[in-house]
Amino acid sequence: MPKRSLRAGKPASPREEEVLTKLEELARVIYSQLESGEPPFFEIPVRTLANTIWDKKRKLLVLGPKTARREFFDVGESKRFMQTILMLSLIVRARRENDYPTIRDLYYTGKHTIYYVNEHGKKVSEETWEDQRESNAVIQDIEVATGLLREHMGIMHDAKGRIVGNMIIRSKGSEIDLSRMGSGAWGIPSDVDRIEILRVKANYVLVVEKGAIFERLNEEEFWRKNNCILVTGKGQPDRSTRRMVRRLWEEFDLPVYILTDADSYGYYIYSVYRSGSISLSYESERLATPEARFLGVSTSDIERYKIPRNYIIKATERDIKRAKELMNYPWFKESKRWMEELELFIERGEKIEIEALSGHGFKFLSSIYIPGKINKGEWII
Amino acid sequence: MPKRSLRAGKPASPREEEVLTKLEELARVIYSQLESGEPPFFEIPVRTLANTIWDKKRKLLVLGPKTARREFFDVGESKRFMQTILMLSLIVRARRENDYPTIRDLYYTGKHTIYYVNEHGKKVSEETWEDQRESNAVIQDIEVATGLLREHMGIMHDAKGRIVGNMIIRSKGSEIDLSRMGSGAWGIPSDVDRIEILRVKANYVLVVEKGAIFERLNEEEFWRKNNCILVTGKGQPDRSTRRMVRRLWEEFDLPVYILTDADSYGYYIYSVYRSGSISLSYESERLATPEARFLGVSTSDIERYKIPRNYIIKATERDIKRAKELMNYPWFKESKRWMEELELFIERGEKIEIEALSGHGFKFLSSIYIPGKINKGEWII
Repeated sequence: MPKRSLRAGKPASPREEEVLTKLEELARVIYSQLESGEPPFFEIPVRTLANTIWDKKRKLLVLGPKTARREFFDVGESKRFMQTILMLSLIVRARRENDYPTIRDLYYTGKHTIYYVNEHGKKVSEETWEDQRESNAVIQDIEVATGLLREHMGIMHDAKGRIVGNMIIRSKGSEIDLSRMGSGAWGIPSDVDRIEILRVKANYVLVVEKGAIFERLNEEEFWRKNNCILVTGKGQPDRSTRRMVRRLWEEFDLPVYILTDADSYGYYIYSVYRSGSISLSYESERLATPEARFLGVSTSDIERYKIPRNYIIKATERDIKRAKELMNYPWFKESKRWMEELELFIERGEKIEIEALSGHGFKFLSSIYIPGKINKGEWII
Repeated sequence: MPKRSLRAGKPASPREEEVLTKLEELARVIYSQLESGEPPFFEIPVRTLANTIWDKKRKLLVLGPKTARREFFDVGESKRFMQTILMLSLIVRARRENDYPTIRDLYYTGKHTIYYVNEHGKKVSEETWEDQRESNAVIQDIEVATGLLREHMGIMHDAKGRIVGNMIIRSKGSEIDLSRMGSGAWGIPSDVDRIEILRVKANYVLVVEKGAIFERLNEEEFWRKNNCILVTGKGQPDRSTRRMVRRLWEEFDLPVYILTDADSYGYYIYSVYRSGSISLSYESERLATPEARFLGVSTSDIERYKIPRNYIIKATERDIKRAKELMNYPWFKESKRWMEELELFIERGEKIEIEALSGHGFKFLSSIYIPGKINKGEWII
């Protein structure tokens, strides 16, 4: 499939007015229901595990076709209905006034106590929402209902990703050369879609799980010597790091390699970059990179790279349990190589970290391991 | 005291050769002891709580004068002695070969099993170190013995700070304009001392505890409108974020304001920026900013800013216990205002987050709260 489109590099975010229009449209549906005397309701795609589908062809976790009516006149749903209207009004207000609230700001701003007299004539009170899980869930509802990412709606989060390499982007009118960040890096912002990617000169994207390894490879200028883009999501990646990686793959056709520790936690990080996560399956099409390749470190590397016995860490019961769960995920199941790797992990009950490769010298990772695996095609998919 | 020196902005890091010389000197001491037939030993400043002193005049936690001899021929110390030599050799090798290992890399590279026959003629084995705490402690010993920060020795960590504002720096030959980072920010690297700060045009430094608040203030271009440098350490700050803040205060005479949640955790973050931490007291002179001002959010803000009741979070027993500990720290004890604030916190048993201010509108924090407190001098020191 030809991925590189005419839109390559262009901001992928809808324009401010479009965002506002989409949000207002959602409200307008309710408004016209009220005007015509209909009982008001939303039609919202269901975000449950049961409605999460593994799309084998596109290699993505996606939301199924099931939708639900959220009706105001249904006692079990009216609270959620009202929460949705409340959140929608907060987000519309923020967009109209050019504000950039965080998800926690939205939680606080919408949080208030409603006093009312119940059916027994008793005065009672209720909170609009008890905790942030409730308000976040409503934001997600609005995302699926409008097809907008919350980042498009100007909602901020603690973005932790870093990127560096031969590429030039434009953001808020500034042209930024990511090969001129010195010892530092460009901190990836919340909304990656408003960035214009002007030029990329690289052969591949290397995503490293660990921030400290990123610092080291950056200090060595690995990305310059190997002509690649270097990214870290610092552990489990946030949405913006995943979106950045996806855009580089989708719009610039770059192969993406993931480097993590050899344990079920690292393997799952690869899985999130590649296939998406269950809780955000409705965003996989924008966040996942279905052709991402797992470079290592893998359990089979223990033998192949002669990792000393005392570098090996015993896997915990939790690790093993998690690995067994991974074996049930269809995107691992479909891969013979992954099933072998996970079986080996469970059988040996052993894990290793990326840093264990330092036993062969500090330069082993950057001079031998990474380029060697890429050149010989020794990744796992 | 005139802080701005001739060295303002210049890289504060010793040159590569100096670093190597200092490290080799430490080894040379041992070498000459061996040559002259003396029992080899190191003389190392003691890094215990008992040897940590509150320097009232300089407003810093510093290491006291106590040193200890680490002797090879002392059964209780020989292991630590050998660990120090081992670590020193690893770091020297890395510097000679221009490698940038992480603290975890050093742990692995030095980790091996020593087999020997003990005094009962039995074959036994011992690990050079069991876990990273041991190897990290040895790195700290080398820091205090040489007066070098581990960053100067090219040792990397997961740097998480971000910075943006009207300043231009030079790093690895690139001039970087931190006012042209778009929606993103400059990710602060491990070694801030190798950066040259070419120009700073700002009235103050605003350090925010929370990454998401940083994103929001950056998106609003708060730093441009208020002519300040915006920094986040994302929670408890790492060494490099603290060093960056210190340099801006020390070399450019900028007032530094700290913005955290109103709880003992937030108050402690302020304390670390300002006075240093006990575990890193030997680095306070380089990492702490003794004139940093606490801007908020404070317990007394609950009344002053009429925070709605349902935004207030009940403090846990742990929070209260921690606040009582803070009351015993001399740098809090010396401040009447802080004692009142901490007493109020303990008395009310209530905490609030920065985001609670959003109840007064999304722009309240950036348009009213921060500039208002700064203009009216309503910070706490």
